[in-house]
This record gives sequence, structure tokens and C-alpha cells, in this order.
Amino acid sequence: MDPRSTFKKLLPAAAFVAALAVMPGLQSCSKTDNKAAGGSSSSALSSDAASAVYVAPGKHDEYYSFLSGGFSGQVAVYGLPSGRLLKVIPVFSQNPENGYGYNENTKPMLNTSFGFVPWDDLHHPKLSRANETTDGRWLFVNGNNTPRIARIDLKTFETVEIVEIPNSAGNHCSPYPTNNNEYVVAGTRFSVPVTAEGKLQDISLKEYKDKFRGTISFLKVDKDHGDMNLDFQIMVPGFDYDLANGGKGPSSDWIFFTSYNTEKAGTLKEVGASQNDKDYLLCVNWKLAAKYAAEGKAREIPANYAHNKMNHETNQATSTMKKTVRILLPEECPDMLYLVPVPKSPHGVDVDPSGENIVISGKLASVIPVHSFSKMQTAIKNKDYIGDINGIPVLKYESVLRAEVKEPGLGPLHTEFDGKGNAYSSMFVSSEVVKWSLKDFKVKDRIPVYYSIGHLLIPGGDTKDPSSKYLLAMNKITKDRYLPTGPELAQAGQLIDISGEKMKMLLDFPLIGEPHYAQAIAAEKIAPNSAKMYKLDANKNQYATRKEGDTKVVKNGNRIDVYMTAIRSHLTPDNIEGIEVGNEVYFHVTNLEQDWDVPHGFAVMGAQNAELLIMPGATNTFKWVPTKTGVFPFYCTDFCSALHQEMQGYARVSAKGSNVPIAFSTGEKRKAPSQP
Amino acid sequence: MDPRSTFKKLLPAAAFVAALAVMPGLQSCSKTDNKAAGGSSSSALSSDAASAVYVAPGKHDEYYSFLSGGFSGQVAVYGLPSGRLLKVIPVFSQNPENGYGYNENTKPMLNTSFGFVPWDDLHHPKLSRANETTDGRWLFVNGNNTPRIARIDLKTFETVEIVEIPNSAGNHCSPYPTNNNEYVVAGTRFSVPVTAEGKLQDISLKEYKDKFRGTISFLKVDKDHGDMNLDFQIMVPGFDYDLANGGKGPSSDWIFFTSYNTEKAGTLKEVGASQNDKDYLLCVNWKLAAKYAAEGKAREIPANYAHNKMNHETNQATSTMKKTVRILLPEECPDMLYLVPVPKSPHGVDVDPSGENIVISGKLASVIPVHSFSKMQTAIKNKDYIGDINGIPVLKYESVLRAEVKEPGLGPLHTEFDGKGNAYSSMFVSSEVVKWSLKDFKVKDRIPVYYSIGHLLIPGGDTKDPSSKYLLAMNKITKDRYLPTGPELAQAGQLIDISGEKMKMLLDFPLIGEPHYAQAIAAEKIAPNSAKMYKLDANKNQYATRKEGDTKVVKNGNRIDVYMTAIRSHLTPDNIEGIEVGNEVYFHVTNLEQDWDVPHGFAVMGAQNAELLIMPGATNTFKWVPTKTGVFPFYCTDFCSALHQEMQGYARVSAKGSNVPIAFSTGEKRKAPSQP
Repeated sequence: MDPRSTFKKLLPAAAFVAALAVMPGLQSCSKTDNKAAGGSSSSALSSDAASAVYVAPGKHDEYYSFLSGGFSGQVAVYGLPSGRLLKVIPVFSQNPENGYGYNENTKPMLNTSFGFVPWDDLHHPKLSRANETTDGRWLFVNGNNTPRIARIDLKTFETVEIVEIPNSAGNHCSPYPTNNNEYVVAGTRFSVPVTAEGKLQDISLKEYKDKFRGTISFLKVDKDHGDMNLDFQIMVPGFDYDLANGGKGPSSDWIFFTSYNTEKAGTLKEVGASQNDKDYLLCVNWKLAAKYAAEGKAREIPANYAHNKMNHETNQATSTMKKTVRILLPEECPDMLYLVPVPKSPHGVDVDPSGENIVISGKLASVIPVHSFSKMQTAIKNKDYIGDINGIPVLKYESVLRAEVKEPGLGPLHTEFDGKGNAYSSMFVSSEVVKWSLKDFKVKDRIPVYYSIGHLLIPGGDTKDPSSKYLLAMNKITKDRYLPTGPELAQAGQLIDISGEKMKMLLDFPLIGEPHYAQAIAAEKIAPNSAKMYKLDANKNQYATRKEGDTKVVKNGNRIDVYMTAIRSHLTPDNIEGIEVGNEVYFHVTNLEQDWDVPHGFAVMGAQNAELLIMPGATNTFKWVPTKTGVFPFYCTDFCSALHQEMQGYARVSAKGSNVPIAFSTGEKRKAPSQP
Repeated sequence: MDPRSTFKKLLPAAAFVAALAVMPGLQSCSKTDNKAAGGSSSSALSSDAASAVYVAPGKHDEYYSFLSGGFSGQVAVYGLPSGRLLKVIPVFSQNPENGYGYNENTKPMLNTSFGFVPWDDLHHPKLSRANETTDGRWLFVNGNNTPRIARIDLKTFETVEIVEIPNSAGNHCSPYPTNNNEYVVAGTRFSVPVTAEGKLQDISLKEYKDKFRGTISFLKVDKDHGDMNLDFQIMVPGFDYDLANGGKGPSSDWIFFTSYNTEKAGTLKEVGASQNDKDYLLCVNWKLAAKYAAEGKAREIPANYAHNKMNHETNQATSTMKKTVRILLPEECPDMLYLVPVPKSPHGVDVDPSGENIVISGKLASVIPVHSFSKMQTAIKNKDYIGDINGIPVLKYESVLRAEVKEPGLGPLHTEFDGKGNAYSSMFVSSEVVKWSLKDFKVKDRIPVYYSIGHLLIPGGDTKDPSSKYLLAMNKITKDRYLPTGPELAQAGQLIDISGEKMKMLLDFPLIGEPHYAQAIAAEKIAPNSAKMYKLDANKNQYATRKEGDTKVVKNGNRIDVYMTAIRSHLTPDNIEGIEVGNEVYFHVTNLEQDWDVPHGFAVMGAQNAELLIMPGATNTFKWVPTKTGVFPFYCTDFCSALHQEMQGYARVSAKGSNVPIAFSTGEKRKAPSQP
């Protein structure tokens, strides 16, 4: 099956054929090993590739990679080069497996101005930076659907902070850390009805063209602890904004956003947003913007957004609603924003390690334009404008353009760099990775990928300091690449060796969720700092029980608090009576273990809840509102020892008002009730 | 780090040391390559292993393996030998990634007598059988916590049926298909207060010893369509039941259950359930039981349990509550049940391919006893009893015992077979797989695994027809085996070559969830039948919209139905007005694509819901109850084409009672409202 057949309808037939015609090598190239179970790649090459990606039992991968889950809402951590899935980090979606978003500790993390939202669409992980390169401390990720930015702590591999973004809808071009982590920047994809006074709440969609605007948000990052704070926003024209990336070196003060639908088509954007020959690159001098904001140029307008934090000393998240946001208007802030024309409907924008070349991928374009930062500065100095939009000067395309990469392939989306003067662009429609030179802007190599590549990654490939060993292609469509699994198929990762002149395909492995962007980092930047457990002594959870003798059951009106401990191989207490239908029963379970990799689980039969998975030294809280009378077991769900199957108790639930006294036991002692 | 250090506290120190002493080779063996990043295994061996597990890009794995997710509640499908994760099949837990348990189509699948339960603990996948071997049609799995059996259709890799099990608590020894799929059998782990008249609802836990009983449930399986029906239950003594397996060949009419806590300890079972030197194997003549049930010997007693089915023609699940169940009492059914003593606290019971040898793994035992089916039949004929329990004869251990495997290791849990006369047992405490002969019951080989192995699998290793190529060890603890990921670590799969005399370690890969049992099957038994899409013509969903021209928005009181279509690259309609805060808005989205691997996604900003992921030809329904006024985008969440980013619309939400008329559009047409 020809992978391109799926996409023929995307482009007018003539354009498609014309575009294919410029790539004579591609058709045969695509067919080389596009055959399931029985392709005929040379076995010597295959054995080389096998050895290159094989990580022998007990050895470790060289890189951590952090792949966005896309519509899973989570982050997947894969080891490279093995392609082994090391962990799924729950971020924006509930995770029944470990109780994230179900237990009382983490539920506040998913609070928003809309209430509890159990899902999001996570697209772009970005590692924190120091000294202009990745430092392995935190990972920032965006929630696209209900705009949010999350921060993951790479000591614990847990989500520790989520900030909702007001005046945004489709938080897609997000989150982009500046070069030294001063800010994480987030742009809205869909424009929204926002004014200098605040957001318009109920407005007819007929007013789209006139009343909808975009916004870009700047979250200040605490340099020691990583805590984020929405410092200010900038109001921008009512386009759709797609992707962004910060400058580096000479362009460090700048961040660049691609926009599309500059036509402001309010319906059937598939057609309406592809009318203009050019859309725009929005260039933001973030340092100047921060200065304007600091000088009081920002207006404070009403807003309503959640700021959620996980405290690892208490293992308890809290959610706070913020009520205002500061916004800068371009017309009041000269020199802060510029627009540069780019070929229609651009997607990715990527800045090369030198900070000079700004690569624009236009998914419908037949070339890859490369803009020059220094030429842009000259054009600004010379006021080489062709007009303005909402008071923002529009620079002349030719004055900023450095070069166009010719005949790159079909549907360029994203570009990463290898630090040896090469760029690698993903071609969605023609399903290939294309390597080209930053010296002469000529294509040097191309390799087919299966199928429909979106993002690609090189470790550090978006920094000034890329590795030049591996490239990971993340492909949207797999069709016949793996054993079939019914109508729903995995997406595909393909690991490519980029150390030589020619790219070499090493490994093809399925991915979970829908990966968009991803980042990778050398293992030694993270592994030595990884936490093994929580210290029981330092557990400040208000419901923690640090020794078995302190366990108790406390009834107070309709609420029952069970202070429980778990240690191999019993739960204390293990039999509880005195619960009535409709009571709110909170099991506060402390894992007393102080050894690596000995979590305990906790579940109650029939609870309308997931389980707890409690790490050593931590306390987690499970809420249960029994719906019927009976005796219901609870037990450890994580096989923890040879006596794990014995780690169990029962809860008796009596009818409302039956007044069975509170009683509980472990071993033969049956204790009297504690009363508050 | 010595993996055994974690477990020293499990056994009295003297016993532990004594046990270790009988395994002179083990300590050095365990240290061989137990070193992270820099072990010194021979590179020639390593290269052989690399080639053995490498599946070159575009080629397919040889086996599908279906791993239980344990506390994830799902099934993970891995390809072997590559260890690549092909798919996660949601079964008992909500899956935000594709909307399972969130969309209106699948929510009824998670209904129970307790209401909607979003999670369970899935332990044991078993493939359906025909002609005494696996046939690749369905996969049966158990929900442990809120007792349920699910059936997955291996044409679509989707969960199509879930039956709740009444009179059960901790549905652990489940689900075991009989040899030709006549029944799927499920035993309760925790005893429950059930009587000949039905379940006692509210009973003191002090009555545990006297009033609690076990049950075994028999679900009849439709031989053509797989539909399950709870035919009858058997009441059994008030022990805890752990695992089971059916006979084969001569023992085909029988199924065997291990029991523990025959002491009936009601508290601190860790101590109380390990007092007796022997517990019991419960042997059930299921064919005789079925005959008794058919003859009317079963009593009909009140019950309340959910039976949920997914209809693939409508893509809509329904849940029905059943109100009675038939139960057989042992004292009324002679020759149906026998008890055989086994060493204390047994775990797995596994029947060899011949059907003659019944292997009992006793997690605290120092030998592996092998019982003989033919000796058991002789003992029954001779009434070689040592007593009875609840009217069930107890056979004499020595009369049934065929052999004991001496010095197998510490903590034997499970055994599979290779069809060449060998058995492979997992040793949880001493972290190894031990190969022993079914001819002389002597240990032939042992290989260390990292760490604390639970279940193991050989493709077909529980049937009369095992493969003899690979064994997969599933280990509970990983500690230093992979790059660290904070306190929460993955569990480990280790693929072992069992084709020769000596076992060879091939591959070490992390696993998702907590795998318990798993099954594998040759790819050719499943792959050719895998569905690629749903046929739009055959879509019988009541809300399906088969062409764009039929899309509409219908308001009826507080309910709004949006009949929407999705096709590259637009949603129809794409702008909707007339929605008010608090309306129940149902988006019925039909994916009009009829091509392989082109799902569309659908999400609405701020919805307290997950997304839809709609397969080609299917209709899914998303419920949204807007909580505030504003305009909120909806969009396709699955990158489907070069114009995917344009596949978007807005919904306007006005205040309650504002009476903005219903309006919707695609392109320039803005339609008048449809009224019902």
C-alpha cells in the first residue's frame, strides 16, 4: 500500500503530482522495506541495527526521552536507544492505575475554572534550561484543550504544578521556556473574544472577525524551585497561532510564533484559512515585554483561573483560584512585536543552534524558508515595513529571508538540528525525514518513514548544544507496520542513526497515545538525582500515621476517618465495623516501608473510585461512599511479598441509622472506638 | 544490592538461611549480571540475543502476548520477541485516551450493582479454546476487586462483554475456560456471608468463621458468539481461594482450585492464615456440576448483578441488571467436589499437557508437590478419605501425591510447560525460573530473574499444545534494572530462550501496570481476522449521520443533540449557537472515513469529560454540560491530515433563559434550527 494514497485528497491532484515530480527518488525509496513480515533488508545491516539498539539486561539506556501523550494527556518516558517505555507520568488526565485524579491528594491538580476536568490534550514537552541548555530539573508541558501549563519534577517524575491560562483557547503553541528559564511562554491557538477590559463572555460567532483576538502568556519561573506564576499576557491579532520557539545566542531575547488563518475565516477553515499566499511569523521581544510589564504598562483585567500545586512534604495538592491577569497591548508597547510574512499555513518554527536561522515549516508550502535574525534586526532598524496590523509593523519577506530550501518534500512540519551544521525536517505528506545543510541550504539526504511523520527529536536538538547521534521520528499512521490490533492502532516511533553522512534506520517501535513533540536528554543529567522513596520522618501529611500503634477510626457525624498503615504484609486496622450506607469514609493510608520499590496498593470492593498506589513513606487518601449494606473486602493491590495475598481486611456497612458501634482490629485485639 | 535482602523479613531468619543453603549455585548466579550500565556480559552472547529479539522495521512479531494490567485494570498487548507494546485494551478502568468509560457508548460497560465503578484489578487473561487449544477468538479476563469477568473480541481488540459475579469478593481465581470453552469458571478469593437462601447483607465480622463461605461461578459461553451467561454457582467452604486451572485430556472434566486460610483466620491473616501445615486443593468435576444444575438440583436465590454488552453494529453498550442466580450445595451433589491436602498457603495450580500431573506451587513450601490425576481417581474409587469438610471428602495426601520436586528454590508461585516434558516454575523469593523434568521431577536448570518474579508464560504453556521457544518472566520489582523514574518504577518482563537444554536470557523490558498472568498465541491465529474499520453502511447507531447533508442540531427542552460528521479536514457543523449553561449537549460524531487507520478525535474546551476517539465508520457520543457562558472551541484531537489544525469550530454558550436561537454552520451557510 502506498502511504501517500491516503493523502492524495489533501492537495489538488495537479499540485500533488507536480510536487511528487520534483522528488524523483522518493517513490522507489518509499517502497524499499515497506512490506510487513518478510521484507528483505540485508541481514548484516539488520544485525548492526539490532546491536545498536539492544540494551542488554541490567544495562541502562543512554538517554531519557519524554514524549507527549497527545490525546492521552500524559507524558511517556522512553529509554533510547532501546525504545523501552520506562514510565507514564500522569499530568492532565486521570490515571486509574495509580489513582492520580481519583485520590484526594491529586484531585485538586485537575481543578480548573470549569471545575474538575479529567482529561487534556498534551502536545509539547520542554525541558527546563540553565546556561542556555537543558538542565534536567523540570519538564514543562501544555494542555491544549482547557489551556494549562504543567510542570513535572524530574526528581520524582511527578506532576507538581498546573497553571490554567485565561484568555486562551487551544493552548497549542506552548510551553516554550526562554533560554535561561526566565519564562515559560504559551500562545493561544484559537482566538478568543478578549478586549482591553477583559474577556467577553457571550458573543455571537458572527463577530469572530472583528472581536476575536489572540494572546500570549508569560509564566515567570522561580529559578530555584521552578514554581510558575502568570506574570503577564500580550494581546495579539485575531489569527490562529500554531507553534513557537525561543531564540538563542544573539536572538535570546526573542520568541517566534507561527500564525495561520490570518484570513480570519470563521467557518470551514479547511478552505477559508488557506486563501492567502502568505501568513505571518510573530516575533516577540520577550525581554522588552517583561520590561514593559515591570514598568506598569500592563493593564490588570478580571480573569478566573486555577493554580494548582502538589506539596511533596504533605503529598497533598491544593488549588487556588486567581482573579486577575495583567495584559499588554501592542499599540502601547513599541518595538515589542513584529510580523514577518511566511508561506501559507506554516506549522513549526525552529531556531538553529547559532540563533541566526529561523526555519519555518509550511505544511502546504513547496519550499522551506529560512529567515535570518540579523537581517530581521536590520530590517527593523531600517523600518523596512510593508504595513502594519493592529499597530504591529509587518516586515518585508525578502528583507528577512535568508534562503529557501528547495524541493524538500511534501508537507514540512518541524525541524531539529544536529550541531554539525545540519537540519532535519519532517515531511508529513511524503512521509520522510529530510536532512539539509545550514551552509548552502541544499538537501543532503532523505529517508522514508512509516507513515506521516509529525514531530521529530534530536536530544538537545532545539538547544545550542545538540547531540548528533540519534533522531526519533514520531509518525501518525502505522497501518501495516506492526501486528494488527483491530481498528485502533498505535502510532510509530522510528529511531534513526544520524552520526554519519547518510541516515540509517535502526528501530521501529509503537508509541502510546499520540506523540506530538518530545525531548531527550542524556541519562546522567537526571538519573543521579532520582528520588527512591519519601522519608517517613519528613511526612507532613495531616493524616499520616507513622506507626501501627497510632492507627484509629474516628467517626464525626457522617464522616469517618480511617488512619491506616500498610507494611509487609498487613493493613492496620484490618476489620472495620460501624460504617453506614452514605457515610463519607476517608481511608488515609500511610506506607510505612522505607525501602526502594515497595509500594503498597489499596482498594475497596464496589467503591466508585480507583485504587491508591502508595509510595514508601507517603500517605494517600481514598474516599468511599458505600452505596449498599454488606461486608466488603479491602486489600493490598500491589503484590508486595510472599504473604501479599493475606494482606486484607473487611469493612462492614450497615443501614443508615443502625448505630452499629465503630470497631476495628488487627490480630486478636478489637479496639474501642476513638471519638474526636 | 542483593534482591533477597528485601524479603528476608518474610521468613523466619533460620528458615531463610536454611533454604538458601540448599541452593549453593544461586548466590553467585544472581550476581552474574546484576549491575546497571556497565555489566560485563560477553558481547558475542549479547549480539546473539540482540539479533534474536530484533524485529526489523516493517517486520512483524511472531507472537501476540496479552498481559494483565493488574491494578491498571486493562490488558496490554505486547509483540514477542521484540517486547514492543502494540496496544492497551481498556477493560475495567476508564481510559481518558480514547474516551472508554467517559463517552456515552462505553459508560454502561462499567456499570455494576454498586453503580458506575471506574477501576478494577485485572489479573488473569485466558484465551478462548477450541479442540483443546487456543483459537484466537476471544480473551477472557477477571476483575478482582468488584468481581467481574470480561470478554475481549480479538477481531476488534475491544471489550465487548462484562458480567458481574454475585456472591463473590476478590474474584481472583478467575477466569478459567474449560478445555473446549464450554464454561468460563470464576472463584471468589475472599469468603462472603452467603447461605442457601442468598447473601446476608449486614453481618458482624465476628461471625466470619461460622457464616462466611466461598463460591465458584460457571459462566456458559456461546460457542459461536462468545456471549457469557452466569449458569450456576457452587457453594464451597469458607476458605480463601487463590488460583485455579482446568484439566486436559483425561482430566478435562475437572477444574482445580488452590485454597489458603483454611484456618479461617478473620484478622491479621499474615499470621493467622499460615498456622496449618497443609491447606487444600479443591477438585471440581464441572461436567457433573453442570449435569446437576441441568437436572434442577440448583436453588434459585436472589442476587443483583450487572450484565453489560457492547453491540458493534450500534457501537453502543447496554447494561442489564439480573436478579437471581442458581446455586448448588455440595451436600446435595455427591462426587462433585473433593479436597486434597497440599503444603501450606499454596498459590498457583497448573496441569501439565498430558492432563495427569497437577503441580501445586506453595509460596511458603520448600518442595513443589505434583499430584496425580489418575491416583486421585483411584483414591476416590477406593474412598481413601481422611475426613470431610462441609460434606466434601478429603483425600489422603500420600494417596494422591505423585512426586515432590526437591530444592526448587524459594517461594514457588506458578508453573508452565514446554511440551517437551519440562516444567518451568517461578520462584518469587529467590528470584529465578527453575526448569524441572516431568519424568524424574528433578531440577535441570535455573536462571536468575530481576527481581521477584510472579507469573511466567510460555505461548500455549497452559494447554495440551505448548510452544517451546520462549518464556516470559514477569517480575514484580525492578529497582536498578532501568534508568530510574522516581519512587514509582515499572515492573519487568524478561524474555528467556527455552529452546535448548539451558535457558538463555534474551531481553529485559519494562511493563505497564502490574502484570500478573499473561497468555501468548501465534500471530497467524489472530492477525488475519483483525478488523480494519467499521463499515459506515452497516452503522446502526441511532444517532449516526451517514452524510454531511444530514447533520443537524436539535433542541428539546434542556437537551441538545448535535448530529455531527468528521472527515478530513472538517467537522460539520463547525459553529453552534443557542446552547445555554446547564443544557445537556450530546455531540453524536460519526467518522465518515472508510480508510484504515484514520480515526478522528473530538474534544470541547472545559468539558468535564475526556475526548472521543472515533474509528472510521463509527459513531460516538460525547456529553457536555457547560458550566459557564462564553465561546468554546471544539476540534479534532487526532492529527489526521495536513489541514488537521484547521479542523475546528466553536460552540457559543449563553446564560440560562437567554433564548439565543439555535444556529449552526459549515462554510458560509448558516442553517435554521431543526426542531423535533
